[in-house]
Parts: sequence; C-alpha cells; structure tokens
Amino acid sequence: MIERLCIIGVGLIGGSLARALKDQHAVAQVVGCGRTVATLERALALGVIDRYALDVAEAVTDADMVVVAVPLGAMEPIFRQMRGGLAPSAALTDVGSAKTSVVEAARQAFGALPSGLVPGHPIAGAETSGVEASVPDLFVGHRVVLTPLPESDAVAVERVRRMWQTTGAQVAEMDYQHHDEVLAATSHVPHVLAYNLLDTLCALDASHEMLRYSAGSFRDFTRIAASDPTMWRDICIGNRAAVMAVLRRYTEGLERLSEAIADGDGEHLMQIFGRAKRTREHYERMMQDQTEQGLGSE
Amino acid sequence: MIERLCIIGVGLIGGSLARALKDQHAVAQVVGCGRTVATLERALALGVIDRYALDVAEAVTDADMVVVAVPLGAMEPIFRQMRGGLAPSAALTDVGSAKTSVVEAARQAFGALPSGLVPGHPIAGAETSGVEASVPDLFVGHRVVLTPLPESDAVAVERVRRMWQTTGAQVAEMDYQHHDEVLAATSHVPHVLAYNLLDTLCALDASHEMLRYSAGSFRDFTRIAASDPTMWRDICIGNRAAVMAVLRRYTEGLERLSEAIADGDGEHLMQIFGRAKRTREHYERMMQDQTEQGLGSE
Repeated sequence: MIERLCIIGVGLIGGSLARALKDQHAVAQVVGCGRTVATLERALALGVIDRYALDVAEAVTDADMVVVAVPLGAMEPIFRQMRGGLAPSAALTDVGSAKTSVVEAARQAFGALPSGLVPGHPIAGAETSGVEASVPDLFVGHRVVLTPLPESDAVAVERVRRMWQTTGAQVAEMDYQHHDEVLAATSHVPHVLAYNLLDTLCALDASHEMLRYSAGSFRDFTRIAASDPTMWRDICIGNRAAVMAVLRRYTEGLERLSEAIADGDGEHLMQIFGRAKRTREHYERMMQDQTEQGLGSE
Repeated sequence: MIERLCIIGVGLIGGSLARALKDQHAVAQVVGCGRTVATLERALALGVIDRYALDVAEAVTDADMVVVAVPLGAMEPIFRQMRGGLAPSAALTDVGSAKTSVVEAARQAFGALPSGLVPGHPIAGAETSGVEASVPDLFVGHRVVLTPLPESDAVAVERVRRMWQTTGAQVAEMDYQHHDEVLAATSHVPHVLAYNLLDTLCALDASHEMLRYSAGSFRDFTRIAASDPTMWRDICIGNRAAVMAVLRRYTEGLERLSEAIADGDGEHLMQIFGRAKRTREHYERMMQDQTEQGLGSE
C-alpha cells in the first residue's frame, strides 16, 4: 500500500497511473503537482488526485512514493525543487522515455544520487494526451522498464516494481544505457524518420495531391509523425548519443540502398529487402506470442 | 459489357478484378494466362477464370480487354509475347505500381505504342497474395489511377475507366510521369525506408531484445517491411528516377535533422517536427473526409 503518492505532471501517464492504483485500492492519497492550476483542478474534479500543490517541495513532503511524469527537459528543475521536501525514505521514480538524461539530471540536481531513485519507463502511450485522456487500464499488459542504479536501495526498487505490477504492467529491469540504446533503435529513430518523411513531402511540389493518392500503408507508416514535437525534441536531445549512433547506421544503410537502386542492382536489393522482411516476420511472430501471453503490443 | 477479358497474371489483383466483374455481370468470359498450370487450375476451380492458356498470344486472341497483372520486371516479355495475338481493337491495360517503366516496356516490345494501351494502377492491395486471397470487393472505394498516353484511343480509355468503375473503384487520370513522382513519395520511398530500418536493426547487437521492447507504434511503422521483396525490387528499379529524387531530398533532410540533434538544437527540431506534425494532421483530415465520401484509405 502506498500511503501518499505524489505525481508531478498529472497528464495522460501520471493520471492513468493514479487511476490504476486507486482502482486497485493500492494508494491511500494522491497529491498532484503541476504548473497550471486549471489542469490540477480538472484532475481533482475527475477524482484522479485528492489534493494538489503548486510548489514541488511542498507536494513531495511526507510522500512515500514520488512519480515524476514531466517532459525530459523539465526533469532537472523538478528534481532541484523537490530537494527540500523529499523524505530520505521515499521511493522516487519517473516515466521518461530516455534514462541516461534523467540520471544525469538527478546527479546535477541532488549531487549524490538519492538511494530512493529508481528510474523507470512505461512503454505505453496513446495519441491523446492530458489528464482527461487518462484511463486506469493504460498499462495493462504493457511493459515497464526499470533501470535501477548501483545507488538504488533494494526496497525502493521493489516498491516501484510492485506499484507498476499493480497497474497490470509487466515489469522488466535493464541497465539505463542499454535501455537508451534499445529505445533509440525501436522508438526514437523511427519517430525521427517519420517526422523527416512528412517534412520532406511537405516541401515537394504538389504535396497535397501526393497525399491524396497515398495508400493505406502510408497512413500506418506516418502515424507517429502526429506525436507531440516538444516531447520528441526532448527525447532526441536527451538521448542524443544513442539516437545518433542508430541514425548513423541507418544513414549508411540508406546510402547503400540508394546506390543499389541507382545502379539497378536487383540482387543487392533482394538481399536487403529479404533480410528486412525476415526480421519483420520474426518480430511479428514474437509480438503474437506476447499477445497470447497477455502482453500488449503498444 | 466485356465480351472476353484476358487476365495475364491471375493473382490477388488480377483475380479480384475478375471476381468483381463477374459479380457485376460485366464480363461474359474470363481467360487466364500465367506461367504455372497449378495456379491457373486453382483459379479455374475457384471460378475466377473460365478457361486458360499458357501461351500469351493465344490467351489474348479475340479478347476485347487485356489486363496485365504481372510484376513490373515481367511486363516487357509479356508485351512481346502478345504481339501476334492482340486484336487492334482490344483495350490493353496493366496494374503496375510504376508507369514510366510500363510505357517504356510497351515501346520496346511493340515499337509504336498501341492505341488500345491505357496504363493503370489500382491503389489497393493487401498483405496477402495469390488467387486464393482474391476477393470481389478489393477495389471498392479505392482509387485507380489511369495514365492515358497521347497515343491512347479515347474509346479504350473510356472502356478501361468503366471497367474499374464497375469494381467500385474511384478512377482518376494523371500524366504517367506525375503518377510516378506521386507514388515514389507516398509509397515507394516509405517502403525503402521501412526495409532499411529493419535491415539496420537486424545488424545491431541484441536486435532481438530490442524488438521485444518495441512499442506498438513500431509495429505500425514497420508493417510495410513485410511486403514482397521481388515486387519492391522491381518497383524501385522500374521507378528509379523518381525514387532517387525523393530519396535525395529525404537524405538531405535527415542530415539536417542529425546535425540538429548532435548540436542539441531544440529550436530547429521543433520547427521540423512541428511542420511534419501539421502535414500529418492535414493528411489525416483529408483521409477522414475521403472516408466520409466513401473512398477507402488503402
């Protein structure tokens, strides 16, 4: 049981976590914290939180669990502001999509890393955002990756793990640098590629007409380009080393592919397309197995 | 009414066209043609075709409508083989995803372009293939682009247009070079990008683990990488000029994006991501309007 949960950033993720824990009677009180009173009042009216504070140090006071659900770029100031209020025994976690930058932000803000800090990343989301979009089952069957640090207290790790398991998520642990490499490859770089495609197309002549004659596959392929630019700016910059490493490999591959197309080298294209198709099929089978095991695909 | 329809290549597209026209009683007889007896026998057993011939010239004899539904790389030999049998009054069309190479193939095979030739491209498909997957409603609400040539006879254009309208498709006309530019941007290059992403990932260490922790957005983004490599090799080579032109623009954009990420240039990223998101949103509204007007999105 969490006695007092403090959620900093009561949006889709923070709000859904509060709702899930309340539904499971796994939390006694939820304190919200954010920059805008209107959002916090809505969260209060929706029953997502029980009270709120605008001051971070005040909000975290006496909380036994603190979840920071703000954009990556806001992590460091939030950590700084909580220093005066955070109890040494409190577990502290976050929901950021890149972890190295969160660890760095904590190191900058706290000096030594607090033993209660257990960085985390729920791999779930939706095209919607805001507390109005929050739902108690957002995490059911989804993965949450925790990246405990050498400094992390084992009890704090266990409490954060149990919190996420209560929401119906499947919790895994990973080294934080490894998390960032994995997510760069399967999430961050794909977003960059999709944004770049839409930006390339909108600069072409007759781009509107082009879009009109697109196939349904284009709609799927470009869906992620509707994601929030601020969030993805923060992720790209926060995880830039891993993102750049994958982008370099991607660009090298694209150059080889372009050459093969220019040369009409069908054999080379067959090799690449065939290998890619086999990898995609392996992935699809894995996803289907996971679905059968009750793991969601988002 | 089509008296004798000859379909060369009785797969998903050719088979679905035959089924649609039969359902609408818009064709008296369907003659199939292909390389493998087993496929043609299956098409016969399924009632998709009424008879078949392995010899192209024999198959097209006395047909008033000939539809070539073979991969782009096979167009020229097929055109060559039909020369002895094709009636001067027959309408001749195809379903290739790139049109410049079809026009070139016809020019090579026939010398002068036949006045009955009206190149076409149904923008429909499925992840399945083969005559067993063919269905009569594959084209309902989907676009078919015809690219009539200066040499094309107006009566032939009208007959090909009516044939596709009978299947429930929305028929549009476009210059063939323009068609190729449009499709390169919204279909051909996206396939190349998705193939390249999967190929890049499968070369990384721990690629299987990476895929395991991917989000649902990755599944949508990479779906097209499961497409048939032979078909897409032919499309990339058949439409290489337009594909290369878009790829060059794409690569330039990706270089600028990579630089902005490396430099931590958040303002630049916000510009690109924001513009991309607005383009995607414009596109999504357009697709929704089309759906309301009864146009499918595939």
